[in-house]
Amino acid sequence: MITDIEIARQAKKRPISEIAERLGLGAHDVLPYGHDKAKISHDAVARVAAQPAGRLILVTAISPTPAGEGKTTTTVGLGDGLNRIGKRATICIREASLGPNFGMKGGAAGGGRAQIVPMEDMNLHFTGDFHAITSAHNLLAAMIDNHMYWGNRLRIDSRRITWRRVMDMNDRALRDVAIGLGGVANGFTRQTGFDITVASEVMAILCLAQDLDDLEQRLGRIVIGYDLDRRPVTAADLDAHGAMTVLLKDALQPNLVQTLENNPALVHGGPFANIAHGCNSVMATRTALATSDYVVTEAGFGADLGAEKFFDIKCRLAGLSPAAVVLVATIRALKMNGGVAKADLAQEDPGAVTRGCANLGRHIENLRSFNLPVVVALNHFDGDRDSELSVVSDFCAKHGIKMVVARHWAQGGEGAADLAREVVSLAEGGAARFAPLYPDSAPLWEKIETICGRIYRAARVEAAPGVLAQLQAWEAAGHGHMPVCIAKTQYSFSTDPTRFGAPDGHIVPVREVRLNAGAGFIVAICGEIMTMPGLPRSPAAEQIGLDHHGQVKGLF
Amino acid sequence: MITDIEIARQAKKRPISEIAERLGLGAHDVLPYGHDKAKISHDAVARVAAQPAGRLILVTAISPTPAGEGKTTTTVGLGDGLNRIGKRATICIREASLGPNFGMKGGAAGGGRAQIVPMEDMNLHFTGDFHAITSAHNLLAAMIDNHMYWGNRLRIDSRRITWRRVMDMNDRALRDVAIGLGGVANGFTRQTGFDITVASEVMAILCLAQDLDDLEQRLGRIVIGYDLDRRPVTAADLDAHGAMTVLLKDALQPNLVQTLENNPALVHGGPFANIAHGCNSVMATRTALATSDYVVTEAGFGADLGAEKFFDIKCRLAGLSPAAVVLVATIRALKMNGGVAKADLAQEDPGAVTRGCANLGRHIENLRSFNLPVVVALNHFDGDRDSELSVVSDFCAKHGIKMVVARHWAQGGEGAADLAREVVSLAEGGAARFAPLYPDSAPLWEKIETICGRIYRAARVEAAPGVLAQLQAWEAAGHGHMPVCIAKTQYSFSTDPTRFGAPDGHIVPVREVRLNAGAGFIVAICGEIMTMPGLPRSPAAEQIGLDHHGQVKGLF
Repeated sequence: MITDIEIARQAKKRPISEIAERLGLGAHDVLPYGHDKAKISHDAVARVAAQPAGRLILVTAISPTPAGEGKTTTTVGLGDGLNRIGKRATICIREASLGPNFGMKGGAAGGGRAQIVPMEDMNLHFTGDFHAITSAHNLLAAMIDNHMYWGNRLRIDSRRITWRRVMDMNDRALRDVAIGLGGVANGFTRQTGFDITVASEVMAILCLAQDLDDLEQRLGRIVIGYDLDRRPVTAADLDAHGAMTVLLKDALQPNLVQTLENNPALVHGGPFANIAHGCNSVMATRTALATSDYVVTEAGFGADLGAEKFFDIKCRLAGLSPAAVVLVATIRALKMNGGVAKADLAQEDPGAVTRGCANLGRHIENLRSFNLPVVVALNHFDGDRDSELSVVSDFCAKHGIKMVVARHWAQGGEGAADLAREVVSLAEGGAARFAPLYPDSAPLWEKIETICGRIYRAARVEAAPGVLAQLQAWEAAGHGHMPVCIAKTQYSFSTDPTRFGAPDGHIVPVREVRLNAGAGFIVAICGEIMTMPGLPRSPAAEQIGLDHHGQVKGLF
Repeated sequence: MITDIEIARQAKKRPISEIAERLGLGAHDVLPYGHDKAKISHDAVARVAAQPAGRLILVTAISPTPAGEGKTTTTVGLGDGLNRIGKRATICIREASLGPNFGMKGGAAGGGRAQIVPMEDMNLHFTGDFHAITSAHNLLAAMIDNHMYWGNRLRIDSRRITWRRVMDMNDRALRDVAIGLGGVANGFTRQTGFDITVASEVMAILCLAQDLDDLEQRLGRIVIGYDLDRRPVTAADLDAHGAMTVLLKDALQPNLVQTLENNPALVHGGPFANIAHGCNSVMATRTALATSDYVVTEAGFGADLGAEKFFDIKCRLAGLSPAAVVLVATIRALKMNGGVAKADLAQEDPGAVTRGCANLGRHIENLRSFNLPVVVALNHFDGDRDSELSVVSDFCAKHGIKMVVARHWAQGGEGAADLAREVVSLAEGGAARFAPLYPDSAPLWEKIETICGRIYRAARVEAAPGVLAQLQAWEAAGHGHMPVCIAKTQYSFSTDPTRFGAPDGHIVPVREVRLNAGAGFIVAICGEIMTMPGLPRSPAAEQIGLDHHGQVKGLF
């Protein structure tokens, strides 16, 4: 069987200037990075902003399992499918993080005949956005320690600095470090650590910023820690936000690439989907909307986490209003949600699919609570049985929605044409009445309870000591209008990753809350969240290299 | 007066594809990065390698002073001057380091009417080469700690790991750190630190590699530390070199930009000039030689450090043979070498110039010991008096060489036309009989003594305890053929930075020696060498930002 990377390397890419033309962009609207990547200039982004916006389609999925759902693949396939049926559609997805590729084999951007290229570049340095974020983040960190070294005018409490450093690398040894050792010339010793770059608040800010001015203001609002009177100290207090903006000015420009079928894709930004909102950048989504009939985008993890954050954080803060939602499921993932072990997935088992549909149904109900029309995309695998497909089809019919079998993995856009037609029918039917789950004005704790109750179906939420007081303090400081970003396991509606299906009545413990004043949301941490991964016993890096043709091996 | 950045912004840049055409390179030979930067592809580099090579001119300078010598400015001016008189000349200089720009105001690439553009990009992320080096370096570091975490098959002695981490940032708090705190899941606790990226051996390797294969082999030879039996452990032992090569494959391609006069410039690589060899990449120099009549390049610091390393490390290892040397001096710098304080430089003082000529004369003698023809370029400043210029002119005449007044700062290439003509006369006169200072076969300690005796004019060299034994051990291990890179102050021929002029009879203490097995040289450290700078009390970063036109302010 031909692999994803082999298909990607056989792609007949068009010069990126031709892809830009499809969006109505001329040679000087884009900054080429090689012959197959480009950034859309700030001037062009600003100019097209006044154009009428196309329709925004979110692709989300059932609760993830090791079987795989193919959310990105379906996003790409749907984009190609929409173009195939005559709509000008653009795909908006996140950039890949460099570090994890050296642990496990890297992720493609899609799969099979539904991919975005150039795959290698996108899994390596791409256009340097993440490096720029790393630089901006670490400049602020250096300025904090430098400020204390030179007299600490702001009276920063070194014990209460919350701003860590970042690196785009899986490096567990940097999770917890002591810095400033070695004597007076190296500053004050203190304990801190490194996160992986995608966990940086700067990443979340880049993805939510409307333009360069907004970026700078958000960077200035970052709270780096507290002074000896426990008052927050910001990046603006350190005069760091201007230089951080300069470091990020190119990175803020959306990246343009193409699908295997030469349709435009904006691949831009990549915030963590647990401690951040897990969506591509607002700048990219807006630019795509202004230059296309349809924009197909996705959000991290399953619909309980990804779609909720997409709606309640990204759409709320950016004023976006989706027209329809595609909920991706596979027979294999439904079986796993129905209790089948991965080794047994090949066996025909409509009963397991029926049990797994509990998870699907829960996500359908949740998505509908945002007042949006939903279609289930059944991402087809070769081993799927008709008996199993019928179970899902019937289940969806009972919920009053369609299930469409999508074969983009094998057939590209043509295989997703039926799905595209159903999406157009929903989006142009005018049924969408998008509203976020809770109003800005609700108290922060109530926002947490609303998400846990209505989306996760928890019986109640428990706060660790200090959490409620902290939320009230932030409300008093003027942050009460912010949405809440819940960091929890993606494998279950509960906080127990082994509870598949559609659990309810569980308890969600909020261990800690964090203020992302620059990004503009509060993070509620429910369970163990890893912000710096480690490498496995035999890291992929050991196999990665260049082959005799100078092509990358071992990365995929 | 118009500033460098204002001149740079008024530049009438030509599309980078037109500059590439000047080198005989077509559209597919270059990878554009925006409209004014490009990388020359590996394929094109390999293809042109067979073409006959042009002449290589080194621009070096007298001992640096706070008055400034304008070495890069003269390099650029001479390149433009050569083009002005009908030679196809290409300029090869180093890339700027990002981190230091946030401490002190950033460096231009040249000055006045002799600059390389785009200046801002070149002082920010440019084409991402340094970020790639940071990633490759830190991947190896992560793989070291990961190897120990998973059982330490190689029995690495955690006390004897010499491979540190790097960041392209001035961050003194990272000089000396303890990592792996926080318990079992974060690995073994040990003490280490961060250097600035330009100090990475990966940077030196990138600059000395002949091609991708050579790069990978050099990376594999990096010694990361020692095992419990004190045997060296290499990057190849960890299977890290393949993945590091993949991270560096784009960075190894030379960067093409242009001068204000639209002449080609390759700006590629930037190793430290103290603990490394301080020259641009071999790949860039070779590619420029294969596509030009003349290549003008420079080396870090004064001729005692920069030129010596250029000859004995870069030219030796890459088989390059320079045709002539330009020694840059200014009246102001000669006065400072003659004992005048910076505040008094405006006063006419031919006596001080005469005293300062001792420094000039020493450099002339040293350069001639490499059997190369030399011309002194007197980089003209407005306040220079005829009486002072005559002193230098007469001094040079006594040494049998010409002094040419160069006015490229004010007049661009036209102002350096006389200098260009003299350079052509020397280079085409066939006087060059380049030979390095010492043979490969000399013992390592003898190499150190030769440099210190013949170039620095030291009375003797003293070795700290263990240094001689270490050198002998490396000779026994097969590293005895390597050249030596001396790390010492650039302000004096001695190791005392306050001894201007032409001191002799001093003692050079070798504090420590280091093996750069991948780069292929031994470093002898003589004095305090800082491999991670700090930020000043009021870092430039506080003033850096975007102005109302979206242009960078405060960086220059």
